[in-house]
Amino acid sequence: MNSLEDVLDFVHHGRGRYVPHVSLDSVIIGYHDQQLKILLLKWKGFEGWGLPGGFVLRHEPIGEAAHRILHERTGLEDLFLQQFHVFGDSPYRLEERDTAFFARFGLEVEPGNWLLERTLSVGYFALVDYSQVSVRTDFFTEDYQWWDVAEIPELLFDHNEVVEKALDTLRLQLFHQPIGSSLLPEKFTLPEIHSLYETILGRKLDSRNFAKKLVALGLIRKLDEQRLIGPHRSPFLYQFEKEAYEKALKLGVVQTY
Amino acid sequence: MNSLEDVLDFVHHGRGRYVPHVSLDSVIIGYHDQQLKILLLKWKGFEGWGLPGGFVLRHEPIGEAAHRILHERTGLEDLFLQQFHVFGDSPYRLEERDTAFFARFGLEVEPGNWLLERTLSVGYFALVDYSQVSVRTDFFTEDYQWWDVAEIPELLFDHNEVVEKALDTLRLQLFHQPIGSSLLPEKFTLPEIHSLYETILGRKLDSRNFAKKLVALGLIRKLDEQRLIGPHRSPFLYQFEKEAYEKALKLGVVQTY
Repeated sequence: MNSLEDVLDFVHHGRGRYVPHVSLDSVIIGYHDQQLKILLLKWKGFEGWGLPGGFVLRHEPIGEAAHRILHERTGLEDLFLQQFHVFGDSPYRLEERDTAFFARFGLEVEPGNWLLERTLSVGYFALVDYSQVSVRTDFFTEDYQWWDVAEIPELLFDHNEVVEKALDTLRLQLFHQPIGSSLLPEKFTLPEIHSLYETILGRKLDSRNFAKKLVALGLIRKLDEQRLIGPHRSPFLYQFEKEAYEKALKLGVVQTY
Repeated sequence: MNSLEDVLDFVHHGRGRYVPHVSLDSVIIGYHDQQLKILLLKWKGFEGWGLPGGFVLRHEPIGEAAHRILHERTGLEDLFLQQFHVFGDSPYRLEERDTAFFARFGLEVEPGNWLLERTLSVGYFALVDYSQVSVRTDFFTEDYQWWDVAEIPELLFDHNEVVEKALDTLRLQLFHQPIGSSLLPEKFTLPEIHSLYETILGRKLDSRNFAKKLVALGLIRKLDEQRLIGPHRSPFLYQFEKEAYEKALKLGVVQTY
């Protein structure tokens, strides 16, 4: 949504096209060079930063809505997006929005407008290599930035709670899902996956045990292939065994690090 | 909601009191004597069975709504209810309900009524000892039954999907949460917790390793107390260390069985 015309149409005729009372918020988690970051947008007329979000079309599956919204708000496509929680308990989520909110964008919203109604938010998260993406802003936003997870500022609305919950979920999922597969090259070295896991968990892992366990559990597989880094450095390459993860998940067997 | 008067008021004046487009569904998982069961309600006018559910009040936190609905529909109170997923992708969740649905209850619902609108559902699950509870039916339901998880029939709407997802979530949570604490006595024997975990996971666990690991990880603690079963049987008692679970969760350390 970039033009004022589109935005006015959305505000005044959106009720028939979108599901009122339900919004989606996306936590886009980026990893590169042992750094973990979150994509935040700077909203026009507000001091603070917030998450990309949007609404579900009347007959649209919410999973599809999550992809569409992310694409519209940031230009990102084909991400693995995962639903993780519905936010409907914080004070911000219990009341109607007021007209002052929209006045900041120069929009006049009449009482009774669908955008003023109480809105529950469904959180989705995605993982990307942030060095590979460029984000575009829209009518509501004037800037974006990848923020280090240790330095997330005070966010708009209940978005700090949303980010925290997304990171907690991600850390748990490391034990059940081949999380790294969207962040590492298809064939990776043990130091690469080791760094990724340490960065996401925010703590040191015992190097030898960590790798041995992943291999022993059949979750990653050593390839008969090495990467040539230098005359004396050619580490073996590994790849994820996605089927082994699925099987382990069904059996309720998880790994510890 | 038991009287026709209450129900008519809900149908015709509910839009102002409830959040439209969002419902809650509860999967009540019961455990007793090494059996795992799900509470299903028999809806009047329908062949099939379904889950207890309801709507969120206009300014009510959704967590509170989950408890209120469960109490209204079943008489159950003070359960540990946990949100696990939003259902909004299946064909049933994409379209409006039709008037024929309500006609089965002898209710005439006018076109445009809030109950006919597309509704996303937030799933909650709870764990109870089913031998300890008695359930009451309401205007919409004529019977209830605890169904063995291996024998769940074809359910109304998308409720089979909701039950499956709840059970998957529960099985994963065994590794992160003191799940058993609402199902076992405060002080329990190792065979008791062993049976509970085997029943939930639906598979045999290695007896000695399982118990040893829980103790080694500090998640359960051996008490200086025994239960007197007979002259030659007085097993030691254990209890959950809830703080150790919370700490392990934060660190991203989980146990395997």
